[in-house]
Amino acid sequence: MRNCGARAPPPIAFGQSTAILAAIALLTKAFGIIASLEHVEEAKRLRLASLLSDAVGWDGLVAGQEIDVNGRDRLVGATDVEELNWLKTGVLFVAAAEMGAVLRGMDDTRIEAVKRFARHFGVAFQTADDLLDLNGSTGELGKDVLKDGSKATLVSLFGANRAHLSCEEHLAHADEALIESGVDAAPIRELVQRLFKKYKAAHP
Amino acid sequence: MRNCGARAPPPIAFGQSTAILAAIALLTKAFGIIASLEHVEEAKRLRLASLLSDAVGWDGLVAGQEIDVNGRDRLVGATDVEELNWLKTGVLFVAAAEMGAVLRGMDDTRIEAVKRFARHFGVAFQTADDLLDLNGSTGELGKDVLKDGSKATLVSLFGANRAHLSCEEHLAHADEALIESGVDAAPIRELVQRLFKKYKAAHP
Repeated sequence: MRNCGARAPPPIAFGQSTAILAAIALLTKAFGIIASLEHVEEAKRLRLASLLSDAVGWDGLVAGQEIDVNGRDRLVGATDVEELNWLKTGVLFVAAAEMGAVLRGMDDTRIEAVKRFARHFGVAFQTADDLLDLNGSTGELGKDVLKDGSKATLVSLFGANRAHLSCEEHLAHADEALIESGVDAAPIRELVQRLFKKYKAAHP
Repeated sequence: MRNCGARAPPPIAFGQSTAILAAIALLTKAFGIIASLEHVEEAKRLRLASLLSDAVGWDGLVAGQEIDVNGRDRLVGATDVEELNWLKTGVLFVAAAEMGAVLRGMDDTRIEAVKRFARHFGVAFQTADDLLDLNGSTGELGKDVLKDGSKATLVSLFGANRAHLSCEEHLAHADEALIESGVDAAPIRELVQRLFKKYKAAHP
């Protein structure tokens, strides 16, 4: 889970037990908010709740955190690291994008394109994050530098050059999927560019 | 939150981080299960999700745990202890009963009676738990003895006799509400009697 750059993360600011309870309260509230979206069809609300449950639960974010906290030493190759990145970051990127597509009433083909966009965008983001971490560029993607320094990442496995190429490829695939999805691409591209601004400056 | 008598509780058996992640996964799964109850009307499923969210969130169980963990020394009187008991135990008793009543398709009057039953039953259960804790009767209501020994409880505030009378009164009110609700009382009474069997033996 992300830290907060200059601000102390909640476990330090408020104590661990309060931070954990706050996380549980916020997660619980998310389902309450979804359930009470009165302007959204009931079937859609239920679909959103299922999506969020799958993304966060034991096949999603929780699995990623468990591996990250207790199973890092068992990550031996690129497949393991990619799986961890998917569980820790990718599932939530995809779930967030998919929920937007469902709310928008898109058909399954367009939803699949939106999910593909989010998946590639998520991998690119994670790789850029690892590269910035390697370079020690403080908090540019919103997390603490060298926090992941001792952990196996795609950068430590493949080297910075190949990781950089991979990042660019995933950004290109994300853009293709964005076009295929038929959504208004301009504001999304602007968002992507803003998020990758510091990374692009460091890797022209 | 309850411990497990003879078995080691999850934080000891599996480590704290895994236990916390398991709790988050299970809570998240609960919302996923509610959302996918295909034989239940969509509006009812959404109502169940809202109920669970309210019961667990920052006005419910999470608030109770926060007070229990970080605010016990600020509990000064019976009202504070009753509020804590309500948040830590009562809200979930009532939510569980209310969800059953909603699933059963009861009207609001009957649902209110079911909730009243659960509220009185919850207070009686908590008081009996505190009394057994005082007497050192191991794990009879399913938790570790003397775990609450140093904490303010209704028993420590009022003494065992008044707490015992209060427990009996709440059980009587629970039974009245049960009759008012119009549900088949026999199996519920049997459940209550089974849960209070050891307590009744200790307080004839």
